Amino acid sequence: MTPPADDTMRNDGARTAAVVLERCDELARHSSLPDGLIERVYLSPEHAAVNALAAGWMQGAGMDTWQDAAGNQCGRLEGATPGLPALLLGSHLDTVPSAGRYDGILGVLTAIAVVERITTSGRSLPFALEVVAFGDEEGTRFGTALLGSRALAGTWLDAWWELTDEAGITLHEAFVAFGLDPAAVTAAARTSNDFVGYLETHIEQGPVLEENDLPLGIVSSIAGARRFQITITGKAGHSGTPWTHRRDALAGASEAIVAIERLARDADLIATVGHLEVFPDAVNVIAGRAEFSLDLRGRFDADRDSVWQQIETLLDEICATRGLHVAVHQTHAAPAAHCSDRLRGVIAAGIRAADLRAADGADDAPAPLELLSMAGHDAMAVAHLTEIGMLFVRCAGGVSHHPDESVTEADVARALDAFEAAVLALADGHQAGSQDPA
Amino acid sequence: MTPPADDTMRNDGARTAAVVLERCDELARHSSLPDGLIERVYLSPEHAAVNALAAGWMQGAGMDTWQDAAGNQCGRLEGATPGLPALLLGSHLDTVPSAGRYDGILGVLTAIAVVERITTSGRSLPFALEVVAFGDEEGTRFGTALLGSRALAGTWLDAWWELTDEAGITLHEAFVAFGLDPAAVTAAARTSNDFVGYLETHIEQGPVLEENDLPLGIVSSIAGARRFQITITGKAGHSGTPWTHRRDALAGASEAIVAIERLARDADLIATVGHLEVFPDAVNVIAGRAEFSLDLRGRFDADRDSVWQQIETLLDEICATRGLHVAVHQTHAAPAAHCSDRLRGVIAAGIRAADLRAADGADDAPAPLELLSMAGHDAMAVAHLTEIGMLFVRCAGGVSHHPDESVTEADVARALDAFEAAVLALADGHQAGSQDPA
Repeated sequence: MTPPADDTMRNDGARTAAVVLERCDELARHSSLPDGLIERVYLSPEHAAVNALAAGWMQGAGMDTWQDAAGNQCGRLEGATPGLPALLLGSHLDTVPSAGRYDGILGVLTAIAVVERITTSGRSLPFALEVVAFGDEEGTRFGTALLGSRALAGTWLDAWWELTDEAGITLHEAFVAFGLDPAAVTAAARTSNDFVGYLETHIEQGPVLEENDLPLGIVSSIAGARRFQITITGKAGHSGTPWTHRRDALAGASEAIVAIERLARDADLIATVGHLEVFPDAVNVIAGRAEFSLDLRGRFDADRDSVWQQIETLLDEICATRGLHVAVHQTHAAPAAHCSDRLRGVIAAGIRAADLRAADGADDAPAPLELLSMAGHDAMAVAHLTEIGMLFVRCAGGVSHHPDESVTEADVARALDAFEAAVLALADGHQAGSQDPA
Repeated sequence: MTPPADDTMRNDGARTAAVVLERCDELARHSSLPDGLIERVYLSPEHAAVNALAAGWMQGAGMDTWQDAAGNQCGRLEGATPGLPALLLGSHLDTVPSAGRYDGILGVLTAIAVVERITTSGRSLPFALEVVAFGDEEGTRFGTALLGSRALAGTWLDAWWELTDEAGITLHEAFVAFGLDPAAVTAAARTSNDFVGYLETHIEQGPVLEENDLPLGIVSSIAGARRFQITITGKAGHSGTPWTHRRDALAGASEAIVAIERLARDADLIATVGHLEVFPDAVNVIAGRAEFSLDLRGRFDADRDSVWQQIETLLDEICATRGLHVAVHQTHAAPAAHCSDRLRGVIAAGIRAADLRAADGADDAPAPLELLSMAGHDAMAVAHLTEIGMLFVRCAGGVSHHPDESVTEADVARALDAFEAAVLALADGHQAGSQDPA
């Protein structure tokens, strides 16, 4: 497929990027935190509000819309004939606490904008287009990630109903409060026959594109993550207690956190302890209990699992030496997910097309770069149903999950062009009956 | 002074110990925590409730009572003639979170019980007896300890008015809400002329007495403590961020906590990090900020200050290496406080008298043991006004600041005998016009 390179399209692209960024700003105003900080969690009033906004934008793009049985906001544009399998486009609208305004959100809004472009062009595709705005990817509220995408993928677990948020509200109760029927959650599950594939745009959440001076990149695969809740129990006591009689849970946890960092670095894995809480948490009381999270991720599942075994041994040793008790509980596990050759090909074709357009037809751009995603994505869950492909967009300093998260309008314009071209490249290949990228 | 050794007194002693322990249980029911856990902080409804109970018991012991301008509950029994300087007896009724039921409380109730014995005996002393139940020793609510005793000692700082609790309520606002007039807090201040000395009974909060098979001990001095709030700032970011781009505040804090422990142990000081909080505190977000407390105490102020300098250097080094920023803020500083020879002598005389009584007059008890108190006490603040002496009572396993905090009724009976005998020994010495112990 050769993309058109006339001025009208470039201007459309620039205008659409501005609209996408305005919509990012509009969504950012729906937050449970004060002072401009962003937090938007699953099944919250803010979740309902942004679903309504997304539904309106989907309708404006020509889609029929519905909220599925798990609270994901969905839209569909029929293809050349009604009822065709769909290319699913999407990402998530929930956030971490004190979040940025692009992680997940940019992918949803890019998908809607690209569908609007295709609707406007009047072009009919050999598949339907569906957009999904997942309600939970981050796992902020219930500690378990990908709840929205796992509902759609049909891998929902009944055990999750008893998960509780910080206020003690169960997932089951939150469903009911949101107006959903827990018994009907399986209605959100789709099947492999529904889809021809899944494409997602996302900010990189890393520095590789920026360091290579590239606006866009192709995801090769998504690192598998395992998450654990680790509880170290000692004995609370007066801060004047002599060393011989201390069983300080926080001292043990601190030693463990330092050692986990060393083990993971040595094995070229990423380990993050982002949550830690001590009890009773008083200046003059030895910590009787320390609870912390561990998020462990790497390119290969086997390496990651081997390092986890080393960490478990180490926790046992530290706690034995210090007279502490340790308990570990796995809260999340996702195998590494590989993007299919076909969808990596269409993303590459899309990036090349956008590069060409940006360069007024002169193809002097470097070949598209493939990156491993250390961050997890909804695509990991959707990979259970259909093949996946992902487009990464450069973000400033590799910073995400932070208010400083930032993208440029020029990069978003390039991403819109590339994502649209990728969809059309898949359509070309699909029409040709081929599994090769266009 | 030779104590009476008849059965009536022994039985009185046993009965009074039971009453003291029942009163500890009654106070334990006044808590802001559910499920039988104890927390009772300065200027809370629970503070008001236990002051009222203590006032009733003081009146029952023959004292006139008042709540002072800082919320301390006070009582006074006149001596041989009205208006004499007083021997001040006391401790505190506030607690840490998830506290035991004896730390501080036992000292207040022992003082009241001993005054009741002296009232009942009809004996007139050459000084008045005052009992004070301090409203804040632990510093749980406002992060600054000894507020109650420093008000009495006249060392209240106006800067404290802006201290806030977790809910953002200032100390000034809490005073008003409790029905106190902040402008009148200086009315709580007493002078050196008001007192002949201060005696305090307290559980040991350490294992030394238990390991020496002794129910009671004499405090030689109270270690000086300094407390700091340490804030390490990095940058929040996605948990998939590569090592090269991480500025993880919790990893830095953990390294610091491990190093602080090593430095303090090597210098024979006690260091406790009991409070730690991370922000934004999410499983999949690198900690952008970690705040923790440090409580540093030792036998000699100079050693402690020297180790603090080493810790400051170390914090700077760790943070420089990790691209973090560190800020430290001292929240509390108390010099080591020495118990006077005279009051150590009367405590020793009291212990010997109680040993004699317990052994039916046969003095085969070991000589009273002197201990350094690593825990801080109200006596440190009162030392600004008058000489201090402290009686330590064995506690099970050296455990305090924990629901398992425990004393035996036999030890409490022995403590009551000893504390009463110490007061009478001081009276004997006082009457003799001597500065030597009886």
